[in-house]
Amino acid sequence: MHIEDQRRLRANSQAFEEICAADPVLVDVRPAREVIPGMVPDVILTSGAPLSWDSYRSGQRNAIIGGALLEGLAADAKEADEGIRSGRIQVRPCHDFGSVGSITGVTTASMPVVVVENEAHGNRAYCTLYEGSTQHKLTYGIFNEEVRRNQALLRDVIGPTLGAAVQTSGGIRLRPIMRRAVHMGDDLHTRNAAATALFARELFPHLMRVFDARRLETEQTISYLEGNDYFFLRLCMAACKSGADSAHGIEGSSIVTAMVFSCREFAIRVSGLGSTWFRGPLAPLQGKVFEGYSLADAEYMGGESIIAETVGLGAFVQAVAFTLQDYSRCSPEEMVQRNVELYQITTGEHPDFTIPFLRFRGAPTGIDIHKVVESGIAPLLHVGIAGARGGQVGAGVMRAPMECFRAAVESYEKRYGSSRRSGGSSAPAP
Amino acid sequence: MHIEDQRRLRANSQAFEEICAADPVLVDVRPAREVIPGMVPDVILTSGAPLSWDSYRSGQRNAIIGGALLEGLAADAKEADEGIRSGRIQVRPCHDFGSVGSITGVTTASMPVVVVENEAHGNRAYCTLYEGSTQHKLTYGIFNEEVRRNQALLRDVIGPTLGAAVQTSGGIRLRPIMRRAVHMGDDLHTRNAAATALFARELFPHLMRVFDARRLETEQTISYLEGNDYFFLRLCMAACKSGADSAHGIEGSSIVTAMVFSCREFAIRVSGLGSTWFRGPLAPLQGKVFEGYSLADAEYMGGESIIAETVGLGAFVQAVAFTLQDYSRCSPEEMVQRNVELYQITTGEHPDFTIPFLRFRGAPTGIDIHKVVESGIAPLLHVGIAGARGGQVGAGVMRAPMECFRAAVESYEKRYGSSRRSGGSSAPAP
Repeated sequence: MHIEDQRRLRANSQAFEEICAADPVLVDVRPAREVIPGMVPDVILTSGAPLSWDSYRSGQRNAIIGGALLEGLAADAKEADEGIRSGRIQVRPCHDFGSVGSITGVTTASMPVVVVENEAHGNRAYCTLYEGSTQHKLTYGIFNEEVRRNQALLRDVIGPTLGAAVQTSGGIRLRPIMRRAVHMGDDLHTRNAAATALFARELFPHLMRVFDARRLETEQTISYLEGNDYFFLRLCMAACKSGADSAHGIEGSSIVTAMVFSCREFAIRVSGLGSTWFRGPLAPLQGKVFEGYSLADAEYMGGESIIAETVGLGAFVQAVAFTLQDYSRCSPEEMVQRNVELYQITTGEHPDFTIPFLRFRGAPTGIDIHKVVESGIAPLLHVGIAGARGGQVGAGVMRAPMECFRAAVESYEKRYGSSRRSGGSSAPAP
Repeated sequence: MHIEDQRRLRANSQAFEEICAADPVLVDVRPAREVIPGMVPDVILTSGAPLSWDSYRSGQRNAIIGGALLEGLAADAKEADEGIRSGRIQVRPCHDFGSVGSITGVTTASMPVVVVENEAHGNRAYCTLYEGSTQHKLTYGIFNEEVRRNQALLRDVIGPTLGAAVQTSGGIRLRPIMRRAVHMGDDLHTRNAAATALFARELFPHLMRVFDARRLETEQTISYLEGNDYFFLRLCMAACKSGADSAHGIEGSSIVTAMVFSCREFAIRVSGLGSTWFRGPLAPLQGKVFEGYSLADAEYMGGESIIAETVGLGAFVQAVAFTLQDYSRCSPEEMVQRNVELYQITTGEHPDFTIPFLRFRGAPTGIDIHKVVESGIAPLLHVGIAGARGGQVGAGVMRAPMECFRAAVESYEKRYGSSRRSGGSSAPAP
């Protein structure tokens, strides 16, 4: 085996271990400006590798402008556009701020975010709160009076109450909830029903403790938690981000540490390749749309929840979530095949996220750009489907574009040598 | 088709519809004597078809005597034995009191029971509360000071607090919780983790409403609900019993409406065959025992939670609960096969309890004694495994003994005619 290969295997093994060791704990819920390093009021975070302002379009553009208005950075859309154009308002990628965004991913300074600490590594990650079950969400590219009211509720009631309860708890460990939820049919991406219920059950006693100090707020928070099955997704995203970040920056590692998309492009980052985004085109979606919509209504407006797939969840545990077969547009048997196929592009098996149907085999974890390119198997991803007029119109699957992985391999070989192209991993040791 | 067959099919279709229409609602938690018709202080209910007092042995006998002591019907075991022998204390089957028992099933007048009303039919069913996660439980044949303390906690704190919260709620619908839990990996017999979490989440706002009136009690109740994943089983059992009872007593129906066992025997009841128990021997258990035990430690001490299988849950939805593969001692693929096989002995497919892996096919529901005998396939049952020295030592599977079904078919033919033996269901209509 080439020395370059040995180094890569060692580095990947280290990155894989970091991902698997992640011990995410929800330690707070606080306004972004109070907890995210570098988050100042004139910064707006959004999903995807950065684009020029003119390239942002439709739902993602709407949401960024909505964020500026919500934050009081501009009086109207025109002023927001000018502010961004002039650089007075800065549009930045979530991932550069330890954050991760759902669909448009728009995050502004006064929005409450979950603060997840990876106790195994000491790093923190952040994500905004679920906006509730209405179709009108900044997440899905809509800004109107209802969004403003919901955002005010999150900022003034839900965020502070959750924060108080979480502080009282001393921190809520997310890994045991995630581990159990995977055995209860959650892929922890498209489906978070079990994790949301388990989390709510764990949070309740702590909510009870803040009840006397804030009665109405506690009741509103409980009703918010009871009213949806998706709350946990944001906690999961921050948890996954905290794990992925702990595996980033390992010299020689070819493991993917982020996958994102904007309204224009897909992109990945690789552990041993610094902060470069390797970009590729958006692939077509497959999925199931809600009644009254068609796939023609679908529109890309960003998304970073595929941080789940980056660390072995989502489509990488699809064989725990046969309820999603209609969204995956395939049979349960095909879901099993697709899940098994992903072992070909990953580094190891997660010790804790195990798949009962595969006799408790650990989830395929740690995507290796070389294995993707050599096998020709692109990571399969579970995604929410946004509609051209905003709102969620369905959910489905997409393949990450091979271009990103080819570009990353090329960059890797430039930096670390090209042993694999000439010899390959099956060559005997010299 | 013989006229007898036509009548049977119509009657079975009606019984099947009753089972599927069941709409169980938890309406109260109250002491047995206040809600179970005929429940007087000198009655002790227990699992299984009735036996002579001398036939009760080991754990089931211990629990019955424990029940007498707990209820203050006797000062010691000797006096309890004499009281039962003389008829002053009556030992009766749970099922004759609209109740259903977990393992020993011992239920006494002052124990709190869940009151489940089947709103589709207007009948009610009852079951005691989960005793908590200690090994020392009356349910599993143990009576000691710890059991006495836990029972006092249930009677004085948990029962009244749950009762107050449930009354405040106006009733908690169980069918939606059960339907969802089946899609979250619960067979609702051996595994109730999802249903327990979903129920806790739904109960919590109502517990909050009784918090001011009973602070310490509410905190104790929350801690009881948080501390286990099995609470829901008793609700499920009462729900299933309420459905099975609504299908009982339909003239001409050959559908099983109860399956039970005591420490000595297995027994079934059939819709169109009155209150007769058709008895058979106890079959060997297969399963997984907890660390430190072996299957040689297993001992039958009764059980009626197979009311779940009676209405299409438990082993009849095993293909939703691949996490149970070790307890079933087979592969996930074999669980699928075993689940599919059960369609051969049932009347229809449940409209609401559907199996994602089988492309959302409804659970096989409504066991027909004729189909069991003709196919030679005995119902497969999920069971908890009790230990010879009391306590739960594992969980596993058993087959209902064919003898019960043959005896029931014989009785059916005596009462309704024996068309099937002479012609069979495939004979053309005259």
